[in-house]
Amino acid sequence: MRMYDLIEKKKCGYELSKEEIQWMIQEYVEGNIPDYQMSAFLMSVYFRGMTDEELSALTNAMAHSGDMVDLSAIQGIKADKHSTGGVGDKTTLIIAPIVAACGVKIAKMSGRGLGHTGGTIDKLESIPGFRVAIPTEEFFDIVNKAGISVVGQSGNLAPADKLLYALRDVTATVDSIPLIAASIMSKKLAAGSDCILLDVKTGSGAFMKSIEDSITLAQKMVHIGASAGRKIAALITNMDIPLGNAIGNSLEVIEAVDVLNGNGPEDLTQVSCELAANMLYLADKGTLEECRSKVKEAISSKAALEKLKDMVKAQGGDVSVIEDTGKFERAEYFYDVIAQGSGVISHINAEEIGVASVALGAGRETKESTIDYHAGILLRKKTGDSVKAGDVLGTLYSSSFEMIETGEKLFRAAYTIDPEAKQEKAALIFARVTEEGIERL
Amino acid sequence: MRMYDLIEKKKCGYELSKEEIQWMIQEYVEGNIPDYQMSAFLMSVYFRGMTDEELSALTNAMAHSGDMVDLSAIQGIKADKHSTGGVGDKTTLIIAPIVAACGVKIAKMSGRGLGHTGGTIDKLESIPGFRVAIPTEEFFDIVNKAGISVVGQSGNLAPADKLLYALRDVTATVDSIPLIAASIMSKKLAAGSDCILLDVKTGSGAFMKSIEDSITLAQKMVHIGASAGRKIAALITNMDIPLGNAIGNSLEVIEAVDVLNGNGPEDLTQVSCELAANMLYLADKGTLEECRSKVKEAISSKAALEKLKDMVKAQGGDVSVIEDTGKFERAEYFYDVIAQGSGVISHINAEEIGVASVALGAGRETKESTIDYHAGILLRKKTGDSVKAGDVLGTLYSSSFEMIETGEKLFRAAYTIDPEAKQEKAALIFARVTEEGIERL
Repeated sequence: MRMYDLIEKKKCGYELSKEEIQWMIQEYVEGNIPDYQMSAFLMSVYFRGMTDEELSALTNAMAHSGDMVDLSAIQGIKADKHSTGGVGDKTTLIIAPIVAACGVKIAKMSGRGLGHTGGTIDKLESIPGFRVAIPTEEFFDIVNKAGISVVGQSGNLAPADKLLYALRDVTATVDSIPLIAASIMSKKLAAGSDCILLDVKTGSGAFMKSIEDSITLAQKMVHIGASAGRKIAALITNMDIPLGNAIGNSLEVIEAVDVLNGNGPEDLTQVSCELAANMLYLADKGTLEECRSKVKEAISSKAALEKLKDMVKAQGGDVSVIEDTGKFERAEYFYDVIAQGSGVISHINAEEIGVASVALGAGRETKESTIDYHAGILLRKKTGDSVKAGDVLGTLYSSSFEMIETGEKLFRAAYTIDPEAKQEKAALIFARVTEEGIERL
Repeated sequence: MRMYDLIEKKKCGYELSKEEIQWMIQEYVEGNIPDYQMSAFLMSVYFRGMTDEELSALTNAMAHSGDMVDLSAIQGIKADKHSTGGVGDKTTLIIAPIVAACGVKIAKMSGRGLGHTGGTIDKLESIPGFRVAIPTEEFFDIVNKAGISVVGQSGNLAPADKLLYALRDVTATVDSIPLIAASIMSKKLAAGSDCILLDVKTGSGAFMKSIEDSITLAQKMVHIGASAGRKIAALITNMDIPLGNAIGNSLEVIEAVDVLNGNGPEDLTQVSCELAANMLYLADKGTLEECRSKVKEAISSKAALEKLKDMVKAQGGDVSVIEDTGKFERAEYFYDVIAQGSGVISHINAEEIGVASVALGAGRETKESTIDYHAGILLRKKTGDSVKAGDVLGTLYSSSFEMIETGEKLFRAAYTIDPEAKQEKAALIFARVTEEGIERL
């Protein structure tokens, strides 16, 4: 086989065989195919797309390029969740304990944040003492005992994806739906869970800006997962406005605890519960309606909150900050941003809010940046709310006043206040995608 | 400027500015843009194409990446001709002397052959003693005195094209019409002639297989040349069958001399005369009809043949083989291929004939191969001819009988003899493309 012929084939719109794709990924990882050929191939995929068969072959080849995590030492059904990334997306901190409280095992590897979106691992590390680097045997042991563990990625998961992503990042081939699907799913397949729920974010704060693109991406990922024998579904959720009110690591943990206490923001609670119910459904815990009841019960009984505490304890964290979130350390400075005019908030650019939170110290601009765990933003007014001049739009938290100044400018620029706009609340969940089809909500 | 942004822009179908394209070529030649970014860009061009403005900017940037030949030391109008390459294409050997005999200077740099198509320089080297490596001053001197010189490429002409072509060759981005146009025209602009006539070959023996693609390529090249202030036109000629009967270096020189003696094959004579007339027309030697008369006169008066002899003499070649082509050394073996059935030749695959000639030793399989100047093929029957079993289809010439055996198989496979087909002669010239438009012939 010659890489030249595979580029030519894809360029002309023909379908590559499974063997060709396996060969290509293996040779590329081994360094036998130069980057200049792979980038020409990736650009051809951008223009020509991939068939379902090609995409399954590509994803499997990428997943098998490194370690395939074997979770068989953990008893019972294991469920995983993946979010395509958003601003203020702390749903894992809420859903994982709920699902574990309902008897489905969560053995989850999560990532760190980069750019305007945060990462679950960073959020958990804002809990004093919490360890995310856990050896595999201890990880399995925690899940077997507590039913839940969320750790940092370790081992050599899907190295082909790391190489391909780095190349796509410098050759303008990131925004190809099949390549995004293969990248995400290669890691999910390698991570080993039986059930995979995908949360595909759509809107200004997400990578996918349109609902239709999000649905297409979801369909491709669901098909890949199902072809690999996993139970899988996707919800298309709104990331046109940040989810909940908190953006920033400890601020988000506090908000997640609020939800598990039954007094979190409505939008975050609703989306988290629906995601959790869908995970239980994939794990055969009843009809979707029955699963929704189980989720409610797990919150009202505080069983989910107890699961979160169990995990924090097992991973060395200070449980007292979960029991009383007032005990979390606070940022040195906080600052209320005051509305200068009146009207209705017609739009909040979620990505710009994310950028503002990074400017305050809550995120990483580059992989080497350090994080201020207590910096961030609390939104006081969101899209659809009416405001009067003098109202507080949001509160900024940071360790330096210069950062507050920069953050305020970015924060204000993210808000559009329209004196004429009507008060309307946007939908939170747009659609549910399964192997059976698309259910628009 | 960042190469990433230029890839993204082209990928999304936006037009690059002249400054962006100049920057890109300069940085690439200097080694500051990695191949993996350039190949992604080239693949985007394959899918998105280039506007006329982009293509002119690209071609000029490529031409100016190395030496721009200054022909001002040569008096009068200088004309150049470029053929996109074909099998048995010896037209330069015929046209250049005709045009020179009519008072237009020919200061031409030519290439060697590779693969199934031959190169003018190799053909000239089959003349004993003929020198193709001529220092610039002597080259100019020969043109000033004899009116004509054809030499091998020297100096650093369009190095950007060499780099880009090598990359395209391994990334399946050769067959992009704008990239082909830029590649050819960058070298022609750098070579310095005032008038450029393009012979765009179309059909089974050519790179462009369809007339429409050939016309598109011609239009782009004509536009590039005109934008750069050159007089330029293109003829779209038939390379579905080899031009003339001879394929192989000295065999083709002999056939070219036959044409200049007024007794060459009809198809080759007709195409050569039309190309020569068009070159004279570009050089303001009268109406096209007047130019055609001048061409006929140059042949019948033997003035063109004298010009060829002047050049051969000036470049150290043995003129006696031109005066009596029987004096050319002959290949050790020759072999008549006999028709096994009867019918009409419905098709000759010109590319396969070219491959057969390479197998006989007449061409190079790789850049390192050596050439047997006297090997090759004389076609005795061509497309449209009727044949009876026992007729000679062609004669093969080689220095080894094993090569004859291989060559015969390839030669036979190139012929399609159809007992039912009608006797038809294909058109030789399909269209003429100028800045004013397309004239279909």
